[in-house]
Amino acid sequence: MVFSRRGMIKGTLATGAVIAAPRGAAAGVPAPVERWGLHEVTLTGPANGNPFIDVDLAAMFSNGRISVAIPGFHDGEGTYRIRFSPPQTGRWTWTTTSNAKALDGRTGAFDCVAPRAGNRGPVEITPDGYHFRHADGTPFKPVGTTAYSWALQSDQRCAETLKTLAASPFNKIRMCVFPNVASVATHPFARTGSGPKDWDPGRFDPAYFRRFEDRIRKLCELGIQADVILFHPYDKARGYSDMARPDDERYLRYVAARFGAFRNVWWAMANEYDNVESKSVADWDHLFGVLVAADPHRRLRSIHQIDTYYDHRKPWITHASIQHGAVALDDGRVHPHRNFAQKAVIFDEVIYEGNSSKRWANLSGEELVERHWWGALGGCYVGHGEVITNDDNADESWLGQGGRLRGTSPPRLAFLRQLLESVPGPGIDPIQQFWDYHLGGREFTWYLRYFGRQRPIEWPVVLPIRATDPHDAYCVDVIDTWNMTIERLPGVFQMSQLNTYDSHDPARPTISLPGKPYMAVRIEKMGKPFR
Amino acid sequence: MVFSRRGMIKGTLATGAVIAAPRGAAAGVPAPVERWGLHEVTLTGPANGNPFIDVDLAAMFSNGRISVAIPGFHDGEGTYRIRFSPPQTGRWTWTTTSNAKALDGRTGAFDCVAPRAGNRGPVEITPDGYHFRHADGTPFKPVGTTAYSWALQSDQRCAETLKTLAASPFNKIRMCVFPNVASVATHPFARTGSGPKDWDPGRFDPAYFRRFEDRIRKLCELGIQADVILFHPYDKARGYSDMARPDDERYLRYVAARFGAFRNVWWAMANEYDNVESKSVADWDHLFGVLVAADPHRRLRSIHQIDTYYDHRKPWITHASIQHGAVALDDGRVHPHRNFAQKAVIFDEVIYEGNSSKRWANLSGEELVERHWWGALGGCYVGHGEVITNDDNADESWLGQGGRLRGTSPPRLAFLRQLLESVPGPGIDPIQQFWDYHLGGREFTWYLRYFGRQRPIEWPVVLPIRATDPHDAYCVDVIDTWNMTIERLPGVFQMSQLNTYDSHDPARPTISLPGKPYMAVRIEKMGKPFR
Repeated sequence: MVFSRRGMIKGTLATGAVIAAPRGAAAGVPAPVERWGLHEVTLTGPANGNPFIDVDLAAMFSNGRISVAIPGFHDGEGTYRIRFSPPQTGRWTWTTTSNAKALDGRTGAFDCVAPRAGNRGPVEITPDGYHFRHADGTPFKPVGTTAYSWALQSDQRCAETLKTLAASPFNKIRMCVFPNVASVATHPFARTGSGPKDWDPGRFDPAYFRRFEDRIRKLCELGIQADVILFHPYDKARGYSDMARPDDERYLRYVAARFGAFRNVWWAMANEYDNVESKSVADWDHLFGVLVAADPHRRLRSIHQIDTYYDHRKPWITHASIQHGAVALDDGRVHPHRNFAQKAVIFDEVIYEGNSSKRWANLSGEELVERHWWGALGGCYVGHGEVITNDDNADESWLGQGGRLRGTSPPRLAFLRQLLESVPGPGIDPIQQFWDYHLGGREFTWYLRYFGRQRPIEWPVVLPIRATDPHDAYCVDVIDTWNMTIERLPGVFQMSQLNTYDSHDPARPTISLPGKPYMAVRIEKMGKPFR
Repeated sequence: MVFSRRGMIKGTLATGAVIAAPRGAAAGVPAPVERWGLHEVTLTGPANGNPFIDVDLAAMFSNGRISVAIPGFHDGEGTYRIRFSPPQTGRWTWTTTSNAKALDGRTGAFDCVAPRAGNRGPVEITPDGYHFRHADGTPFKPVGTTAYSWALQSDQRCAETLKTLAASPFNKIRMCVFPNVASVATHPFARTGSGPKDWDPGRFDPAYFRRFEDRIRKLCELGIQADVILFHPYDKARGYSDMARPDDERYLRYVAARFGAFRNVWWAMANEYDNVESKSVADWDHLFGVLVAADPHRRLRSIHQIDTYYDHRKPWITHASIQHGAVALDDGRVHPHRNFAQKAVIFDEVIYEGNSSKRWANLSGEELVERHWWGALGGCYVGHGEVITNDDNADESWLGQGGRLRGTSPPRLAFLRQLLESVPGPGIDPIQQFWDYHLGGREFTWYLRYFGRQRPIEWPVVLPIRATDPHDAYCVDVIDTWNMTIERLPGVFQMSQLNTYDSHDPARPTISLPGKPYMAVRIEKMGKPFR
């Protein structure tokens, strides 16, 4: 177990590994597994031929109430594994099916117990469709970052990245299975020669995936979601995103079986899918179908674009992942994304904090933090990334390889995350966006106003409350989002009707603001304190 | 034929009416019909029972190259009609099929000739998906208005509305089949008593629909598209939008057969569909399926919302129709709608020009025109509406009943339409929206910049042109969108590289602007004059 810098005990990924009993015999019951932990069945089977292609293996897990079919995978040299994350407590039994005699009809059982503190279960979508929560009901407010190939670096570099993450506000990280920058691990498939394209898509290199899942496991121990990017267009030399369809399908099934039982896994089908020239939208749709079928753990699924928005209303998409350089500059630009997607929206890429000569990586910390706030005000979420280097080499930055963070945004994003986590209800929703109030929150409960680069010296405390709505007393906090201060103004604001649409307190129609940028105001109904 | 105020001859809706020959005999060939005109076959059949329900009638039209099955409809008292708008010239022959003996196996023929001047055919979507054109290839730039129940008013009031429209910039009008305000025509169905709900959904009142199609025909003669709203939530007392599914289906088939052959018809499935409490999204999807099957003329199809955006990517939607009070305030709010819909977008309702006490109808002319320009800059289209009354009664305004226009926006929208119609290519597209240039047009050909309420006194003529792009000479027009002036600046701007992403003319890096609101700048490549 590790202690986060907030002093909260985070969960471990309790793994109940078990060597299965001989075929037909019941296995001894192994150590209990916590709910949403990982139970791994290890079996020995054929090592000859090509087990990745020749051998089918799955197990049916049942606790008497529900049954789940879990695919297995070959981990090399005749070792087979089946990984299952139990969604319910109780005694689970399992039976295998396989086209390999040695793997067929094997049985076993284990007990699933209550999760330890810090294990809140996988992240899922809230019932309203626009926000996130853990399976135990705890809200999850994504404050994500991106370090594409961090997991493919040396153990030492990875340890540094993990240490950075542990001290950071980030609870989600976007990370590629296939390398996109210089990496230690570069070949997920067995090599057939020394050229970049000399590899066999039919033979995975288990060591490559073992390394990757080690990173997933360590992120899980830190309570950080691994947003696993399955394809990307950045490595045409090796061409891992240009495989034939049967190879793509086999790859998806392999990663779903290997990684899907880790409760912190999210699936990002692709980065900049529309720049992968070898695949059409119909191909991506097909691959989503394959992934859905291959992933009984039903992890979150999305896909990221450069230009052409994918159709996020398609049923296999759980949330929209969007790149746009100029959307999170105003909540009025953010709202339409919720309107269209009718789902949770994460702006994963909004230009990175950086000192790059490239315009996609040259935001000041202030600018990136501002984008996070506009996104939040609009009821969506924004992602972080950093390209700060001494030699204008983005590949070696946090964005490319992980390591250390040097920017000024992370502490402010910690402050924002704290605010997001204090919000009552599932999250911030836009309030009367049709009328451009620039308010988020929840009607008649609490309101957030953000001013971005504007430097107002006063603000009229006018809320969209009609004569037939409740007229309560509110208290007001003035928030400096950059200097991370919250000042509660003395006294209350007793709302009364101002006109057909709005209310205010005639005794205190306005508040003073300091004329500085990056200010926000929070208006909170008295007697409904924040968590 | 009528002459528009621009002196352009507009087309007539040439109708080749024909009384069919007796069953089994070939009809005499009637007067020729122009392409995209309307050929109407009139037949006599059963008048007893309920012909609206009992009798099926259709005709197969063929010109030897293509065949089209066209549904007929009962026009009362045993008169049946089949209306067909021929998409190709040549000799067309037809044969009927019917479950009524008197209507079955009837045949005939007519000649379709080239269209007369002004008849450019129905409006369709351009191949790029984002704009409109007539079937003859002429671009169509929608500058639409709304007068919901104008067609249901007295002939005198309707004549006034048509006169207003003829002198207006509007080339499309949104109009309800079912009344939403006080109207002369209020019952599309046969009455069964004197109460508001005393009507028989199984029996149409042909006179009601004859009145409506008279208005469609007159709009066609003016070259104005009739955006026919099939359902709306505003008349719960009579409840025409709350019929049972078989009645909805019969109604859609009836209007498709009656109105669909008029080349200026567009289908708006509903106004504020999400306020029709009796129907779910699945119901609307189903009704679109019915409409597609019932409309062999394949007129444009959309649906309008109040809150929840319909999924405009569904294949039966040809263009998005969107209501939003705060979207067309910045092209950065407009672009995402194109990104998501991946189709042409019309913001049909963006708050109306008006003096209403209601906030949905209280824009100044300046404010409404500004919204049109932001929408245009973002590659979309915006609609007009007007609620200017002496007694704050929106029902009696232009929006409700038509009549006269009193606002200040129409002349400025005529000016905008003129600009839109001068644009080379299918229309304005956003240029590098990812980087917030606030530019529309077509890269390396022409650019439009709009400033809205800002009052700049100068503007740097910087265009997103890279070193590897063509570096041409451009000329610049300064446009006052409110005072309707275009001033061409003397000389040229010879582009050369400014930085990695942008070019300018170092000899003329900026232009002066007059410090007034509602200015625009058009930058046009030399030697590529506007049409």
